[in-house]
Order: sequence, then structure tokens, then C-alpha cells
Amino acid sequence: MDADVIVIGAGVAGLVTADRLAAAGRRVLVLEARDRVGGRTLTVPVPGFPGHVVDQGGQWAGPGQDLLYKELARFGLETYPQQYGGGAALVLFRGRARRYTGRIPKLDPLTLADVGQTQLRFDRLARTVDLAAPWRTPRAGELDGQTFESWLRRVCWTERGRDFFRTACEAVFATVPANLSLLHALFYAASGTSLEHLITTTGGAQQDRVAAGMGTLAVRLAAQLGDRIRLDSPVRAITQDADGVRVRTDDAEFAASRVVVAVPPTLAGRIAYRPAMPPRRDQLTQRVPHGGIIKCHAVYAEPFWRADGLSAECASDRGPVKVAFDATPPGEGSPGILLAFLDGPESLRLGELPYEQRREEVLRSLARYVGPQAMDAVAFLERDWNAEEWTRGCYGAHLPPGAWTQVGAALREPVGRLHWAGTETAERWCGYIDGAISSGERAAAEILAA
Amino acid sequence: MDADVIVIGAGVAGLVTADRLAAAGRRVLVLEARDRVGGRTLTVPVPGFPGHVVDQGGQWAGPGQDLLYKELARFGLETYPQQYGGGAALVLFRGRARRYTGRIPKLDPLTLADVGQTQLRFDRLARTVDLAAPWRTPRAGELDGQTFESWLRRVCWTERGRDFFRTACEAVFATVPANLSLLHALFYAASGTSLEHLITTTGGAQQDRVAAGMGTLAVRLAAQLGDRIRLDSPVRAITQDADGVRVRTDDAEFAASRVVVAVPPTLAGRIAYRPAMPPRRDQLTQRVPHGGIIKCHAVYAEPFWRADGLSAECASDRGPVKVAFDATPPGEGSPGILLAFLDGPESLRLGELPYEQRREEVLRSLARYVGPQAMDAVAFLERDWNAEEWTRGCYGAHLPPGAWTQVGAALREPVGRLHWAGTETAERWCGYIDGAISSGERAAAEILAA
Repeated sequence: MDADVIVIGAGVAGLVTADRLAAAGRRVLVLEARDRVGGRTLTVPVPGFPGHVVDQGGQWAGPGQDLLYKELARFGLETYPQQYGGGAALVLFRGRARRYTGRIPKLDPLTLADVGQTQLRFDRLARTVDLAAPWRTPRAGELDGQTFESWLRRVCWTERGRDFFRTACEAVFATVPANLSLLHALFYAASGTSLEHLITTTGGAQQDRVAAGMGTLAVRLAAQLGDRIRLDSPVRAITQDADGVRVRTDDAEFAASRVVVAVPPTLAGRIAYRPAMPPRRDQLTQRVPHGGIIKCHAVYAEPFWRADGLSAECASDRGPVKVAFDATPPGEGSPGILLAFLDGPESLRLGELPYEQRREEVLRSLARYVGPQAMDAVAFLERDWNAEEWTRGCYGAHLPPGAWTQVGAALREPVGRLHWAGTETAERWCGYIDGAISSGERAAAEILAA
Repeated sequence: MDADVIVIGAGVAGLVTADRLAAAGRRVLVLEARDRVGGRTLTVPVPGFPGHVVDQGGQWAGPGQDLLYKELARFGLETYPQQYGGGAALVLFRGRARRYTGRIPKLDPLTLADVGQTQLRFDRLARTVDLAAPWRTPRAGELDGQTFESWLRRVCWTERGRDFFRTACEAVFATVPANLSLLHALFYAASGTSLEHLITTTGGAQQDRVAAGMGTLAVRLAAQLGDRIRLDSPVRAITQDADGVRVRTDDAEFAASRVVVAVPPTLAGRIAYRPAMPPRRDQLTQRVPHGGIIKCHAVYAEPFWRADGLSAECASDRGPVKVAFDATPPGEGSPGILLAFLDGPESLRLGELPYEQRREEVLRSLARYVGPQAMDAVAFLERDWNAEEWTRGCYGAHLPPGAWTQVGAALREPVGRLHWAGTETAERWCGYIDGAISSGERAAAEILAA
């Protein structure tokens, strides 16, 4: 045996799994396909501004994410508010820009009323979801038999209202409502408190940033694990029998008593298993596609929008950048940075454009929010998560109609000596870093109990 | 170079690709994961009845499938009518069994009227589909943003009518309407003429059987190709560059100028590509799950139902066997055989039962149709396609909401030196053997033109 437990994937879920197992005295080995740890979190330096960083992956912490705050505190990683720079948010709907402060975007009264009644009905339904077993939710078959888009068309009266939710959906799920089972949309919102919570900055899921970058959390976790992590080791095959498990990479094979697969289910489906996965588990992995994200950062000498009273928190019904934020780091000598999301199916089109053209489209889109100065970026960073071989889309998986009720139980259920971790398997904060942590703790607990 | 072209998969699509390329003078190599050819077609002997066979995979030919009839004729494979034994069909709805002849199942007048108006509206919509590019269909976004189930709930007035379509959907797609994009359901029906055509025996897609078994077609095609086919060779990785393509199996590597991947897209997504697939193609392979099928044959000394005036063509709103057929081979000394489909999500549950219990459930279900003699099977055959590692569900892929309009174009579009075949890529008879043939001819033509 090379280890008691092999963990596949050194994202936050895999690292937490390994950390908890190591703390309990188990010998662990973490196999990571990439040449780095962190998975869907990644902090990079800002070119030209030494000492300053941006997060090209998951970056926020917010109320209710107790596990994440605890893990950050463990490593002394300080947070600061997303909105520390102050200023008004901006909504650009039907070509008209309006500033607002507080939680409620400035839309016309009819649209606002419509958004309000729709959100009320959505959150009321979301509260009925059985988070531990969404397929046991009352009327699960009916909720899972329709798309979130179909529900919006039925419940939301105005096209403007529907467009508000479409933008919100892209911001939260990185995909359009047409792709989502209504049950999944409800589950996901309830898993993260409520839809409103998920689209809110202060007091919601985008409340806090990490000064050193969220990607640092994985780096610190990895430092504790030291040489128990093997990079550049994509797992190709897993063979299990009564005696144990053998895990094969391109150039080596490792044996252990148990394995935790801590990669998203769609990627887990690409590993060759011996014996082959049972039908239900295999079908699940055929039905958990990822959303699409290209995360861009436009860097300026200073956060010029603040002088104009803007927070750079922006949303629009039109792309390519439908949602933007201030990504200016705190502290002296910091550049001004705008964070622009290209998300959903449109991110596929934009990813196929030449770099210069995409940069141009993004900056022009930002200029709609903060003015023509947005064109004068001194640096431009982008990360196309759709093109990352070991993620293949972001933020995470969504379940299309029918999947939760037919094969959802296979998300977490161990298969022999194989256990599953990853934020997609979380009950609370599914799709978020907090969910990755709880999934790792759950998988570790399963193994310690076995 | 080991060949000009490597074809991955020796199902009908792959074999036809190789056959056409070989006929054009190209050196081909076919790599097949299984220890047999035929993919989703497979003919097996009936135990205890030497010389008689049943098809555990695709088995029918019908009007409009000109390519299939031509290919069968080429090898002298004779067909005979599904309904050669005569007798009345049976519909068992809401617990009440009724016999009928002709095309229209005997339902109560209100349900029939409702089924009629729904079918009319469905076929009218289906005729608007752009078969070559479903994403260019008028109102494609709207049609692709909802499930077939949502549409049924809106358009079909009665719960009985909806249950009729749910059973029809399971029979045609091997999955429930909740899983299907409406656009996909429309495309698939139009691709195979019409929904009515697809559920019809005489004059429709289940009109003819092959005397020697449909699986024989692949065997004959393979015989022509001889040692150009390598069995037991699952492809794990494909690397392409300016000079050519290298294909790696577990124990060997082969080089060629081009490759045709002739396996279903969800399985194609499990191959490791160098360079990695472009995001759109990768996302497609995340979103093309298979339906579920366990195909069972119950064997009797004789086709006892014929004495009772029954054809054994049966359908019900209740499972586990919702659809059954006569599978009695023609000729002297033949046993009587009933074909029972276990399909859709229920096939996952049934596949998890012990063999004896499943056999019992199937026979009891058949007894509802043809009487208690159904319990006295002298042999029972089953093939769980969900458990087959190199198919992982049947009959084929279905597209959930959003997939056609967002990533559908990647189904057929070559990626460098890689081309795609398989019935899922067919415009006409998508999901059928005829579609597999046309896809192979198209892929071969692409390569000959390149």
C-alpha cells in the first residue's frame, strides 16, 4: 500500500479531505492532474503591480459560510469587504443605466413588482426542497420535469422581469435558465440560503474577499500536506477489488485501501473504472454538465470609477459582460481593477474569438458601466475555465431536468471503496467553496467510519 | 503510419465508415473496445432451440430506411414482417385491456381525441425543424428551453393522453419526456419521419425484422474488413498534430493521417485528447446522456398467444414492461418468444434487482398482456445495456434543454484531423441503424474530400 487513502484532485475539497484524514493519522496521497493545487480557485499576481493579486477562480466568502471563514481563520487569511471602496451600484437595463445603493436594483416599478413577486414564489418553493435528498422534495417529479426557464415564463409576467432573472441565473449558475431543472435551481438556491442571498454583495454570498487571494487557502492546505501531494498526475484508471484499490496515472500506479474522488462528477465519469461503475452512477456522470465562464480582469492605474461615486458593481440584461465587480486590492499602491464575467453559452462564442477582439469587447462592455476610461486598461487578464482541461467549465455542475429525481442519489453514494467529494456533492453551499470544504469533511468522515 | 484512417468503434457506423473508405482504396484500421463487433446491435442464439436467434440490440427496419434495406440486401439478409404472425394488438390502460387492429390503439374516445390533437400539434411543430441544423429552427430558443414534459402538460388536456405520450416517449427514446428538450423530441421525430411513424409497426419503424438477426449486418460488414479490425482495443487517448494522429489503446499505439470517432458522444468524451477538445465540443459531450434499456426475451415452447388471436404487440401506462412485441423467429420448429422492454429511469431500478426477481417481474408483467401462460417461460434472456461498459445506456443519446441551440453544432463538426460518426450525428434516422449507416457514409465522404 502506498497510502491508506488516495485522494484524487487537489482542489479545496480534495485538500480538505486529505487534511482531515492526515489529522486522524491516516496515510494519504493526493494525486492532482494539474501542475498546481487549488482546482477552481487560483490567485495570480497583477502584472506591473508587484505584491498585488487577483482571483481568477472562486473568490468570495459570505454569511452562512462558517466552514470557509473557519478555514481562512485557521491560516490567518484575512478578509475584507467586497464593497470596501463604497459607491453606488449600477444597473443597465434596456440600455438605460441607473445607480442605486442597498439591495434592490433600480428598475422601473412594474418590473420591480414583478421581480418581487417572482422571487417570493421562488423562495417559497425553494424552502420546500429536501437538501439532503432533493428527490424526496414534495412534488419533486413535477419540479424536476421542467426547466427554470419554463417556470419563469409561467410565473414572471414581464419580459423585463424574466430578463432580470436570466441575468441573475447566469451570474449564479454560469448558465441560462433553459439548461436548469427547476428543482435544481431551487435546490441550489436553498443550499446557499436563498436566491437573493446568492446575488447579494454585502450580507450575501459576495460579501468578503481574501486579502491574500482565495487561492491562497489551497496553497496553505497543501503546504501542510507537503510531499503527500503529487502534481502532474492525471488519474486515468481506478481498479478495486476485495483487497484494495489501485489508481493509475500516465506514469505510475498506486495502491490504497480506499479512494476519494474529489473532482467534478463530469470529470469523474472520464476515469476508467474496474469494475465499471454501476449504471446509476454512470448515468449521473453523463448528466452533470458545467456552466461556462471566462473571468477577466481589466487593470488601471487607479480605481477611477470611485471618483465618480461608483462601486463598479454592475449588472445588465445585455452582454458580453452582464455582471462586473470592483476587484481593486486593498492597500497602498494598488491599481484599480475591474472584474468582468463572461458567462453561460455566450462564453463559448467569446472564447472562440481572437484575444484582441475579446479584450476589446470586454472593455467596451465595461465602458457602458463606468465610462470610456474603461478602454484604457494597462493590463488585461483572462482565464477561460471552459478551456481548462481539468475543469472544463465553471463554476460547477448543474443538473438538467430529470437528473435529480432519477440519478441524484448517486452523487454522494460510495461505490465499494470509492467515495465522492467536491462541492457538487454538498448539501449546504453546493457549488461554493464552503460546500467543497463540507464535502471533504464528509468524505473523510465516511472513511474514518468505514 | 499504420493506416490512412483509424476508425474507433466497430458498431454499424464505424464499420460502414471503414467499408466505404476501404472501397475507395484507403488503408483503414478499426479499433473496437469489445470482443465483438456490432455495437448496439447483437444477435444471439436462443438456448434450447438450435438455429433460432433473437436480437438483443437494434432489430427493426421500416419504410424510409432506404440505406438500411440496401445494406441488408447487399449481404443477402432477408427481412420478414414484424406482424407476420397476425393477430390483434393490445393496449392496457388504467388497468383495462383492449384489443385492436390497425394503427389506432383502442382508448376511450376522449383520450383518443386528445391524443389526436396533441399528435397533430406535435407533428406540425416537428415539420418546422431544420434537420441539418436544429439550432436554426424557427423559435429554436423557445422550443429548446422547455422539456417535452412541460409541452405535454400544456398542450395535452387529459392525464390519460399525457400517459399515452409518456409511454410512447419511453418506447421511442428509452427515457421519459422530462429528460428531453422539446426541440430534441421534435427533431428526433422529424428525423425519423414523424412520431406516429416511430411508434408504428406495419408501415412504420418497427415494420420488418431480419431473419438471420440484425446483428448479422455488422458481422458481414466486419467479414469484408477482415483483419483490419482489432477487437479488445478500447481507445484511451488520441493525439493529433500537423503530421497526423496517434491513437493509444491499453497495449498499443497506432498512427494515421485521420481518425473517425464512431462511438456515442458521451463515450467519445471519455477519451483523453491531445490537444484537449475545444470548449464547445467538450461541453457537448457533457450533455448527451443515454436513455436506459434492459431488453428481455421470454422463450416458450410455442407462440401460445396466437391461438388467442393476439399479436403480442402490447403497450401499457404501467410497467415494468410498458411495451412488448412478438419475437418469435419464422420457420419450422421455432419457439414462441416475447420481447419485453424495460426502459427509461425504471430500467435503472430494475437492473439493481437480483436476476430472479427481475425475471419474475417481467414475466408477471407479460402475463397481464397474454395471460398466465407467460409465467411458464422455458428460457429467459436479458441484456442490460445500461451496464454495458462500451455503450452505457441505450438506444442512444438524447439532448436535454439548451443543448441543441448552444452546442449542437459540435456534434458533427470535425476537430482538426478528427471526424465524428455514429447514429447520434445523423440528420435522417438519428438514433436508428439507418442513421448509423448515413453517418458512416458522411464521415467517409468528409475524409475522401479532405
